[in-house]
Formats: sequence, structure tokens, C-alpha cells
Amino acid sequence: MSEKRYKILITNDDGYAAKGLRKLVTLMRALGDVTLISTDEVMSAKSHSCSIRERIYVRLVHEEDGFKEYRCNGTPVDCVKLGYQKLMTQPDLVVSGINHGMNAATTVVYSGTIGAVIEACMNGLNAIGYSLFDLDPDADFDHLDTTILEITKKVLKEGLPKGVCLNVNFPKRSEEPMKGIKVCRQAACRWVEYFEEKYDLGGMQYYDLDGTFESDDIMPDTDLWALQNNYISVVPTCFDWTAHSQIEPMKAYETISIKP
Amino acid sequence: MSEKRYKILITNDDGYAAKGLRKLVTLMRALGDVTLISTDEVMSAKSHSCSIRERIYVRLVHEEDGFKEYRCNGTPVDCVKLGYQKLMTQPDLVVSGINHGMNAATTVVYSGTIGAVIEACMNGLNAIGYSLFDLDPDADFDHLDTTILEITKKVLKEGLPKGVCLNVNFPKRSEEPMKGIKVCRQAACRWVEYFEEKYDLGGMQYYDLDGTFESDDIMPDTDLWALQNNYISVVPTCFDWTAHSQIEPMKAYETISIKP
Repeated sequence: MSEKRYKILITNDDGYAAKGLRKLVTLMRALGDVTLISTDEVMSAKSHSCSIRERIYVRLVHEEDGFKEYRCNGTPVDCVKLGYQKLMTQPDLVVSGINHGMNAATTVVYSGTIGAVIEACMNGLNAIGYSLFDLDPDADFDHLDTTILEITKKVLKEGLPKGVCLNVNFPKRSEEPMKGIKVCRQAACRWVEYFEEKYDLGGMQYYDLDGTFESDDIMPDTDLWALQNNYISVVPTCFDWTAHSQIEPMKAYETISIKP
Repeated sequence: MSEKRYKILITNDDGYAAKGLRKLVTLMRALGDVTLISTDEVMSAKSHSCSIRERIYVRLVHEEDGFKEYRCNGTPVDCVKLGYQKLMTQPDLVVSGINHGMNAATTVVYSGTIGAVIEACMNGLNAIGYSLFDLDPDADFDHLDTTILEITKKVLKEGLPKGVCLNVNFPKRSEEPMKGIKVCRQAACRWVEYFEEKYDLGGMQYYDLDGTFESDDIMPDTDLWALQNNYISVVPTCFDWTAHSQIEPMKAYETISIKP
């Protein structure tokens, strides 16, 4: 009896050479036929950017049984669009990551990894983003294997609700084994920037963006709490950004005069 | 008796020369002291990108009583970060636009204009995005004047709920006067892409992104319905992308084995 071969599209925002991406390819190849479409450049903090004013060049760089690898000059969102529209037949799943660094709390807003996941979700595809709370380019991803395989298998088997994708974050490897999975909400914590004023060789002043992450919403029902307590966080995530609870209270705006 | 002079930060994603931006500056100067920070390049579809790997150069290009204008090589989100952190005292309001083209339905996900609004909101600032359903660089914005002034005054006077910003879209000018304001939800409609395969002078193949907008969720409670029926849409918008209704049903994921 032959098992179904799933069709899985992979992308990321750390560029084609990232260790986390290669780990994800290895894991997904155990579950199906993989099409990898990654970017020439690192696309961290490129969010949901797509190339509406730039040409996209794509190359097939590797092909073997059950695996095709493309590379392009676009963004992670472009990779998803190209994948399901041009480079493969309809994927059963889009997986993005494994990101070097967490995509919890409001960092999802900036993330190219999560941009790709939301793009897939908007187009009716099952989609998961995987991230590790460790920025090290040589981070250890081995404690993630079982969980990524099991979560992915569940999504492949059962699908996800319409308009919902998964944002999965793992704690950094530590002496203690991880405690389990928490299904939780996105914390409201945010980056607070400061800008370093510097001067280039030509004497022109410029700013370098830097900042600190302000953890002022680490309640037990949040993804940040989960990560800080050695749990894996799973946040069901959507592209409907309406603050639904505010529609009724804000009906007062409908009484505003619009007469010129 | 002297009226309070509000401090208003303006940005956009159509670049510094856009007609809609200049209109917004004129309108906001009637309400307070304006700091304009715009971008050298058009930043459409740059979403919530910010410059974590690029230097940001900023120039003060114009200054007069009650008005300062800066320009930079960053993104709309960078403009907001620079504004409230470096270039002005804490603004009472951040206003983005007036965008040439609508930012309704799922187009908010791609929009640099709305990226700036959400960035401001994440940092506890009142924020509004204004867009016109007309892509023409020479679009007529004059039918928006009263409504923009009145909505802005209401927000300046009352503030917005924590974690909520406003996404305001106007219908294109027509023979008929606009019918009023609808406070509504973001429609689920989306862009469906197709890619034109072309060849450059060197014979290299590339893709140009194009697409059609699929309007399959134009219910009367949506922003797209409002626009198509000559109403102004106001969507209370948030940066919490958790699909809250799915947290309980998805607790089943917590039973997944994570043993390596």
C-alpha cells in the first residue's frame, strides 16, 4: 500500500543558505515531495513586501527525486506567489522557516517568515511558520524534529480552519527538555527603537536602527510566556485585522458630517 | 483664548511627491503643527518592512512656521520610528496617506501606508490611514476634505482605544455625492496573481507580477461593499493577529508528543 506523497512548498526569510531552512527541508522530505523557493538575500523584517515594481528572476538550482530547489531575487511573499501559481502544482502545505530568532508577540508584524505564511493562508493554502528563539546562525535545531514532524502531520491530515494559519515558536535549546506545547495568543510586547547617529566616510550622518524588546505583556496565555517557560508556542493566526469588538462602539463615526 | 496646537506626524507610501500626501499636509496644517517624514522612493507593497540591515539617511528639506519636512531612504515604518523617537516630540497623532489607490480588504496586508499606521499604533500612538479608491497620480481628492478634517478632529479630541487604529478608505469621485460613513470589517477578498514571463535584453527570463482582485466577500458589513456603494469605509484595525476563536478548538495540539 503506497502512502500519499504530499506536495510541500518551503520558503523562509533568512536566505537560501540558512541552517534552519536546510533542517526544514530534511524534515519535510520525510513527509512528501518538496519544492523549495528561497531568496538570494536575507529578507528579515521584510514583512509582507512583494515585488510589484521589480522584475523577479528565478533559477532552478537543484533537482533530484522528490525535491526541487529554486532561488529568486524576490521576497518570501513572492516565493509563495511564484510557487503555487507557477513552479509547482497546488501544494498541500506551505511551510516557512525554520527562522533563526523568534517570531512571537508583535514581531510577527515585521517577519518575512510569517509574511509568507499569511500569504499562503490568504490564498486558501494550509500554512505553518516555524521559528527558534535563537539568532545564532549555527543554532541547534535538533530538539525540534519530533514536534515539527508531528504538528506538520496533523495539519496535513486534518487541514486548518479557513483563514487560519499556525505560528509556531520553539524555545532555545537548554539543559532542561522542553515542557510541551501551549496554544496561545500573540503577546502585545514590542520593539522600542533607539537610533545610533553615525557618520560615513564622506561625512554624511546616518542612523542605524537598534532597539530593545519591551516585555510588558507576558501573561500565561501568551506566546512569550510559553517561550520563556520552555514551552513551544502555537498561535492560530489570521489575516483579518479588524478589531471586531470596536465596530459597534465606533458606529458614532457614522454620524460625522461628510458634506463638503 | 489660544487653541491647543496638536503635533501631527505625516507619512505615506507613494513617495514624497505624491499629490495625496501634499493634500494631507494642507489639511493637517489646519489642525496643528505638522512634521512630514516621507520616503525618496515609492514604497507601495512594502508592507511593514523596516531597515534593520540598511543605513537610514535623513534630510530636513523644508521648514517654516508650523511645518517641517524630512525625507529619507527608509520605509514608511522607518519614518514613523524616526519621527516619534528622533525628529519630533511625542506626536498626538500619526496620519498616513492619502494613498493613491484603496487599502481595503486584504490589501492592508501589503500596504506601506497601513504598515506605518500599525507601527504607530503598536507604539501607543493614535493613528489613521487615509486612502482613495483611485490610482491616478492626478486623482481628485477635494471631496475628502470635510470628512478627513472631521474624523481627524474626533480622533484628536477623543483618542482611540488601546491597540486600535483606523483604516479609512474613500470612493473615487463620481457624479453622485458620497452617501456617508460605514464602520465595517475588512473584507476577505484578495489579489490573485498571474505572472508574465518576459525576457530581458540579455536573454534572461524574468517574471512580472500582475493579477486580478477577486471580490468574493462583498457583504454589506465589509469595507469593499461600502466603497462600491459610494460610502466611506472606516475599519477599526489591530495588530493582534491571533485568531482568538481558534485557541480553544486547537488545544488538541497540546497533546502532541514532543519527545525527541
